[in-house]
Amino acid sequence: MPDSGFLMQMPEQRGSFDGEWFVEEAAGRAQLGIHVRSLLHQETSEYQDIAVYDTSFFGKLLTLDNLVMLTERDEFVYHEMLTHVPLLSIPEPREVLIIGGGDCGCAREALRHPLTRVVQCEIDERVTRACEHHFSWVAPTLADSRLELVFGDGIRFVEDQEESFDVVIIDSTDPVGAAAGLFSSEFYQQVARALKPGGVMVAQTESPHWGSRIVTEVYRQIRSVFPGVEAFLGSVPTYPSGCWSWAYAGRDRRPHDYFDLRRVAELEPGCRYYNRSLQTGAFALPTFARQAVDPSA
Amino acid sequence: MPDSGFLMQMPEQRGSFDGEWFVEEAAGRAQLGIHVRSLLHQETSEYQDIAVYDTSFFGKLLTLDNLVMLTERDEFVYHEMLTHVPLLSIPEPREVLIIGGGDCGCAREALRHPLTRVVQCEIDERVTRACEHHFSWVAPTLADSRLELVFGDGIRFVEDQEESFDVVIIDSTDPVGAAAGLFSSEFYQQVARALKPGGVMVAQTESPHWGSRIVTEVYRQIRSVFPGVEAFLGSVPTYPSGCWSWAYAGRDRRPHDYFDLRRVAELEPGCRYYNRSLQTGAFALPTFARQAVDPSA
Repeated sequence: MPDSGFLMQMPEQRGSFDGEWFVEEAAGRAQLGIHVRSLLHQETSEYQDIAVYDTSFFGKLLTLDNLVMLTERDEFVYHEMLTHVPLLSIPEPREVLIIGGGDCGCAREALRHPLTRVVQCEIDERVTRACEHHFSWVAPTLADSRLELVFGDGIRFVEDQEESFDVVIIDSTDPVGAAAGLFSSEFYQQVARALKPGGVMVAQTESPHWGSRIVTEVYRQIRSVFPGVEAFLGSVPTYPSGCWSWAYAGRDRRPHDYFDLRRVAELEPGCRYYNRSLQTGAFALPTFARQAVDPSA
Repeated sequence: MPDSGFLMQMPEQRGSFDGEWFVEEAAGRAQLGIHVRSLLHQETSEYQDIAVYDTSFFGKLLTLDNLVMLTERDEFVYHEMLTHVPLLSIPEPREVLIIGGGDCGCAREALRHPLTRVVQCEIDERVTRACEHHFSWVAPTLADSRLELVFGDGIRFVEDQEESFDVVIIDSTDPVGAAAGLFSSEFYQQVARALKPGGVMVAQTESPHWGSRIVTEVYRQIRSVFPGVEAFLGSVPTYPSGCWSWAYAGRDRRPHDYFDLRRVAELEPGCRYYNRSLQTGAFALPTFARQAVDPSA
């Protein structure tokens, strides 16, 4: 079991739908409301509540346990950043593992690179099936023969890997419930073992604005395994605070040791958020975020 | 009168307070809710409705015409970025003009530089007086003998200036109503005349996410006077989308022509957002924002 001291620090978040607005509330402090046209899908899987809404402005919205996972309008930010930043920092990436990511957004972006194999290990097959039905990019992504779908526990899956992947992408939900184990040093140790020499782990690491104590704890866990971990940021309007962080944790690799100028030139025209200026610019952290990531620095 | 074609493109925003939540809604699309403990101040001035709330999480909140202007929790982002980015890009700034900025946040930050004179021209004295009563930084800022308070129309004030200022900061409300004239090429022409050679205008320029057509129009107006204008971004959670843009428009000066390493070393310890990495990092725009700022690029 993970060292999950930070579980108690997670501000309680809850979402609700009143027939007109889907509202996500952070512990009685702040609310984000998204205007809904109709509820398209609702089910309770073995792991969580899954819903898809049609909204007035954000396209379709996926929620898990009543928390915003993605909207069609701004998912590109999260998926482009979590995928292209690590993949362009490695000379010849071939094999990628995605833990979580059942919506196939990271897989979609990863498959734009000249990889031979993308493994996506999602615990809840129902998430992928709901997304396959409702989001346009999923079926083409699933049809790519380089993608291997595994439905199972990412922690178990990683335990069996050794120097197998150039990049491991942790595309998880918040550090509560089923996903808590994906934020522990024990798990990061297994990820480090699963990486080839020179490989990179990236992970979603919450908002530095309103979750700064969680960010501090998550980076403490990562740093115990990857001492050179660095954070990068992006703007995701439908996530709490609108500012999101991700970790770049290399096995013998720092974010700016290498940058593939040939591949970025090919990728940029198809990106709506990512471009080469962000490969350095996104690592320029505001002071409050630096302090959240490493209070001792 | 300004060429205000973009007025019609401004999504209707409106705020309301139900006794528990202050909710700002963008045209039936999205809502930001801030939990309120109590309403501290409410008045209708000659120009607008002014209110100050005590909130559960964001400290005090200032609204004008029921739109969020600042909260104690995140105002540092806006004020540090709008002030330190231009001031550190000039070798020896001495005189600064702030148009708007009645909450004195930009003046507070500007006075941390070795200036001889800061003129703040706010149209609505009641904003400054309400803030003086409710926000802790205002009285010390007003007490600084280098600050000259002018209560009047910024457009008129600028018309009378010629090569008077190293930096002009446009700290305005949205481009509707009284502030619309502050987003016109005619006004920017006057600002250019008010700048000393090598001087810089900075201006708040809305969110590139949800106001991209407005951003495009504002930059078109600025570019007609300052061809080298560039945008920089920051994360303000209580503004629409959480991502805000500002313009850097130099008279014979580009953002990275100069950077004062001695002064930044003195300033950084007192900043919560700004640090030297952002002097370049904040100009690294995501692709969608680049396209909003200059669709022809």
